Amino acid sequence: MTTVTETLAKFAISAKPAAAAFEMMRLSLFDWAACAIAGADEPVARILRARALNDGGAGQAALVGGGRAPCSIAALVNGATSHALDYDDTHFGHIGHPSVAVIPAALALAEREGADIQALLLAALIGAEGSIRFGQWLGRAHYQIGFHQTATAGAVGATLAALRMLDLPETAAHHALGLAATRASGLKSQFGTMGKPYNAGLAAETGVEVALLAAVGMTSAPDGLDGAQGFGPTHHGIADATAFEALGTIWRFEAISHKFHACCHGLHAMLEALAEADIDPESIRSVVVCTHPRWLSVCNIDAPATGLEAKFSYRLTAAMALSGIDTGAIASFSDGAAADPALVALRDRVSVVGDESLSETQCRVTLTPKTGGTTVLSHDLDAPIDPGQRAAKLRHKAASLLGEERARALWQAVSADTLTPLLREIAA
Amino acid sequence: MTTVTETLAKFAISAKPAAAAFEMMRLSLFDWAACAIAGADEPVARILRARALNDGGAGQAALVGGGRAPCSIAALVNGATSHALDYDDTHFGHIGHPSVAVIPAALALAEREGADIQALLLAALIGAEGSIRFGQWLGRAHYQIGFHQTATAGAVGATLAALRMLDLPETAAHHALGLAATRASGLKSQFGTMGKPYNAGLAAETGVEVALLAAVGMTSAPDGLDGAQGFGPTHHGIADATAFEALGTIWRFEAISHKFHACCHGLHAMLEALAEADIDPESIRSVVVCTHPRWLSVCNIDAPATGLEAKFSYRLTAAMALSGIDTGAIASFSDGAAADPALVALRDRVSVVGDESLSETQCRVTLTPKTGGTTVLSHDLDAPIDPGQRAAKLRHKAASLLGEERARALWQAVSADTLTPLLREIAA
Repeated sequence: MTTVTETLAKFAISAKPAAAAFEMMRLSLFDWAACAIAGADEPVARILRARALNDGGAGQAALVGGGRAPCSIAALVNGATSHALDYDDTHFGHIGHPSVAVIPAALALAEREGADIQALLLAALIGAEGSIRFGQWLGRAHYQIGFHQTATAGAVGATLAALRMLDLPETAAHHALGLAATRASGLKSQFGTMGKPYNAGLAAETGVEVALLAAVGMTSAPDGLDGAQGFGPTHHGIADATAFEALGTIWRFEAISHKFHACCHGLHAMLEALAEADIDPESIRSVVVCTHPRWLSVCNIDAPATGLEAKFSYRLTAAMALSGIDTGAIASFSDGAAADPALVALRDRVSVVGDESLSETQCRVTLTPKTGGTTVLSHDLDAPIDPGQRAAKLRHKAASLLGEERARALWQAVSADTLTPLLREIAA
Repeated sequence: MTTVTETLAKFAISAKPAAAAFEMMRLSLFDWAACAIAGADEPVARILRARALNDGGAGQAALVGGGRAPCSIAALVNGATSHALDYDDTHFGHIGHPSVAVIPAALALAEREGADIQALLLAALIGAEGSIRFGQWLGRAHYQIGFHQTATAGAVGATLAALRMLDLPETAAHHALGLAATRASGLKSQFGTMGKPYNAGLAAETGVEVALLAAVGMTSAPDGLDGAQGFGPTHHGIADATAFEALGTIWRFEAISHKFHACCHGLHAMLEALAEADIDPESIRSVVVCTHPRWLSVCNIDAPATGLEAKFSYRLTAAMALSGIDTGAIASFSDGAAADPALVALRDRVSVVGDESLSETQCRVTLTPKTGGTTVLSHDLDAPIDPGQRAAKLRHKAASLLGEERARALWQAVSADTLTPLLREIAA
């Protein structure tokens, strides 16, 4: 029987991507870089960057926000930096953020290896697809018990990206994945703290580190992912074999979801639904938000005390959206907003209910005005978006994060042949 | 209610050790350094040291075997190096090797802070005691399912040692432990590969890294160890509250066990029992080894293919001991021994049986000669050893690892006032 390690190693080494998946990764690279550059002044990014620069060492790879560090450290810093705003892409099948773990690993090694944009996109796509598949193999139980799949499956994805970038032979690839199995970690209980973006950085660092170690002869348990006492069995994985169906043929990464609101992705279907609301906030008696129950342990902080907590609160973000506050702007999620008396008063009229009949991408909101009568609004994030429309929305988002000029330069950089323009943009 | 994080942070900050525990840590420091120096030429040590030197950076701390690196990298390299031979100390209550995770973290920071031997011993003792207590709080279920407690509880212990060494305030200590909760990892399925010593290094690195990050303002979930979706609940911990009884008063570290055979500690009670055997190996019909069942998933490789695997094989090490091979000598555990026809023939006459009536430190061996009649030999590792006798045995072990002269210099180094002689010995 083929082990999960063998399946993934073979995929990393030999996969040939479809054009649509490849172009989707280009959009994700653009969006990732925009989020990372915009996140470079966040406290977690500043702390990790300063620590990396203080430790110093071989300047193999660029840090977002400036400076250079050894590859694995650059992956750590850039992973955390790109997830600091929680504004990066999400895959709902995998329940995680593939790009923040995978792209920093691929990028750091691409720079070290002198690779071009095509090679970077290919390695990143393979890593992202692999992390999605491995996350699905682990299944919901792994996530529900408390593991941060962005970090755990992300570490495996980052390893696959690194393997492709380094072009390692199969045996070394197996050892790298075994080392990833014993290193991968990350808890969901860190949500709302610097620990969440740190988890993404750790995953990226793991991918780079284990691939570089395996490249120079480090060994490990070759069945570390799925064997007895391997990662899956010890981490509440359900070992869903269907996760690897049509691997290399169908690219589940194509279902990636990009964020157009600067908060937890669990809130986005509600916010898209509320975008259709046309009601004076003063006149609202009650708001009932129906969502898939799994989100209730993710982003349902009842009374957020800080801007960071506000990003994980159905009730406050509903109040913000109904009050006309731009939930696409990062600055909207402030400590002031969390404490604002008018928002808090409206927040306290919002209730949140789990509804198993909804999918995880669907939300239904019932608005009841003081004058009686109700309005029901719904949205499904899974509804397809035309690629051109998606690109336009991402360019608009990047412009609001970085300014028009910088967003344009970044757009050109991800379409260039060489890495140089992209590296120039992230280091600026 | 006091959380586990609060309990451990308070202990790290304010504990005052008893003299007997303190002197026991001096013996463990001596034994740790001897194992580390002797392990510096092992492949895993050479790979990690070369990688550290290649990445370079601030030379804050000495690497065992020579060279300098940033503190957290030195902790990683020295942790793996000291566990490479699997010859370091064990605590059977905690089911792990406390020193290889804790001492490298304490030592790297001690050097950076300019601390003396007393401060190093104090931080290391606090870390070791904390890792034992936290390991007991996690309980056997955590270990049985497949986690390598040396690495997981070790990461928490290394963090406590680092907190004491850096003298961090309580709030920062809570954040450091929260970060340790999201980083701590390590699987038992790595046993028999380089992944096992790597796990110890990762634990040491985690302790240094999270303490240094918390010192500059990094935040995390303050209930990351025991809160909802914290480390314990997600990692099959049983949350045994008795684990923290008399913390700071009774030092469970005093029950530490040192190895006098160069293989997995699970085999030692059998080897001590077989030391009493007086039988020609040719004349043996059968050997039945009765051991506590939990060891059967740890060190019961039926037919080891390599010297490394031999260290985890009841059957082969029994054959070695009965054939008069010195199981205290590292060189005895070779690929050649694993393949030796005479040893393999004797190995195939050994059977291993789990027996719940034995404790984990006890073993009973029944020897049946071809001529009939049986001899039953028993040993319990828990039988107390006089401190002077323990010191003499450790000095003898160090001499056989490093030579008489080097062992003497190391003995003087752990009794010196300053760190300098110890650093000189490990870097040589």
